Amino acid sequence: MQYPEPIAQLIDSYMKLPGIGQKSATRLAFFTIDMQEDDVTAFSKALVAAKKDLHFCSICGNITETDPCVICADKTRDQSHVLVVEQAKDIMVMEKMKEYHGLYHVLHGVMSPIEGKGPEDLNISSLINRLQQNPTIKEVIIATNATPEGEATAMYLSRLIKPAGIKVTRLAHGLSVGSDIEYADEMTLFKAVEGRTEM
Amino acid sequence: MQYPEPIAQLIDSYMKLPGIGQKSATRLAFFTIDMQEDDVTAFSKALVAAKKDLHFCSICGNITETDPCVICADKTRDQSHVLVVEQAKDIMVMEKMKEYHGLYHVLHGVMSPIEGKGPEDLNISSLINRLQQNPTIKEVIIATNATPEGEATAMYLSRLIKPAGIKVTRLAHGLSVGSDIEYADEMTLFKAVEGRTEM
Repeated sequence: MQYPEPIAQLIDSYMKLPGIGQKSATRLAFFTIDMQEDDVTAFSKALVAAKKDLHFCSICGNITETDPCVICADKTRDQSHVLVVEQAKDIMVMEKMKEYHGLYHVLHGVMSPIEGKGPEDLNISSLINRLQQNPTIKEVIIATNATPEGEATAMYLSRLIKPAGIKVTRLAHGLSVGSDIEYADEMTLFKAVEGRTEM
Repeated sequence: MQYPEPIAQLIDSYMKLPGIGQKSATRLAFFTIDMQEDDVTAFSKALVAAKKDLHFCSICGNITETDPCVICADKTRDQSHVLVVEQAKDIMVMEKMKEYHGLYHVLHGVMSPIEGKGPEDLNISSLINRLQQNPTIKEVIIATNATPEGEATAMYLSRLIKPAGIKVTRLAHGLSVGSDIEYADEMTLFKAVEGRTEM
C-alpha cells in the first residue's frame, strides 16, 4: 500500500529541502495536513512569491524586490566602502550588527576547484566594473568565510583590486567573544596570535 | 534593515513547521529562492492539494482521497480484525510489515489529561458503532504507543469493548529485534520478562 498521491507528492517536495530525509518529510507532510487551512494557503503563496517577486540587485547582487535594492538606493549610506560577502543572507547578519553603514557586494559563492567553480562563475566582473565607475569607493572589505575556498577567493580579489589603488581589507579572525581558549582550534588560535593588538 | 517581504513571509511559514526555528527557516527560505522554479511550483501545489484533496475515511478515520479509503473498500481483506492506531501514519508502518491483512481504526490521538484530551475528543464513538454494526469483527488489536497516555487509552478501550464479547489484544512489548540487553531500559526489560514465551 502506498501513500495517497497528494501526501506522496508533498513528501517528495519536502525531501528536496536540505537536511530533510524521508522520515522528516513524512512527519512534515502529516503535520501539514493537520495545519490551519489559512496557514497552508499562505505557505503555498509565499513559496511562489519568493520565487517570482525576488530578483538580484543589478548593482550589488543582493536579493531584492526593487532594483536597485534598498541599500544601493540609499544615498545616505557611506559610498566609500564596499563589503564583499559570499551570500545575500550574509548582508542581513552584517546589518544586524548596526555598525557598518557602507555598501555591499554579493559574490553568490566562492571559488571552488572541487565543484568546478572559478572566478567567472562568481559575481566578480560586476564588482570590478563598479569599482571602475565609482571613484568614490576607497576601500573593499572582504568578508568571505574563513574556509580554504573563502580564503582563496579573498586572496584572488585582493590581487585583482589592489593594483587599482583601492584599499583591500579582510575581516579579523580570532577568538569568538565569550569563548574559552581551552576549546579553540589551532587555526583560530594561530590567527588570534598573529593578529594580536596592542593594549 | 529587514528581509524583503516575500522572504519574511516564507520564513514565517517555514517556522510554523515542527522543529524548525528562526535560523533553519531562514536557511530553508534562501534555499527555496535558489531552487528550480518547477520544484517550487510543485511544492506550492502539493501543499494546497494535501489540504484540499485529503479527507478522513468515514469508516476508519484514515487519511484518504476516496471515501471509504482503499483499505475499508477492499473486501478481500480480513473483515474479522480491527487494529486500532493513534495516527493515520501508523497504518503505513503496519502496511509496510505486509503481515497484517485486517482492517484499521484511527483514534487521531490518545487520552491525555495534561492536554485536556478525553475519550470524547478521540475517534472512539465511531469505533463502537462500527463494532456494533459489524458482527464479523471478532478481535480488536490495540496498537497505541507504549507511553503512559497510550497505555491508558488502551486500557480504556479494552474495558469498553470486552463486555460486548469481542476479543481485545494489545501489541507485544519487549526487546527490539537486534537490540542489546545491556542498553535496554528497565520498563522494556520488565515487559520482556513479563511477556516471555515458551521455546
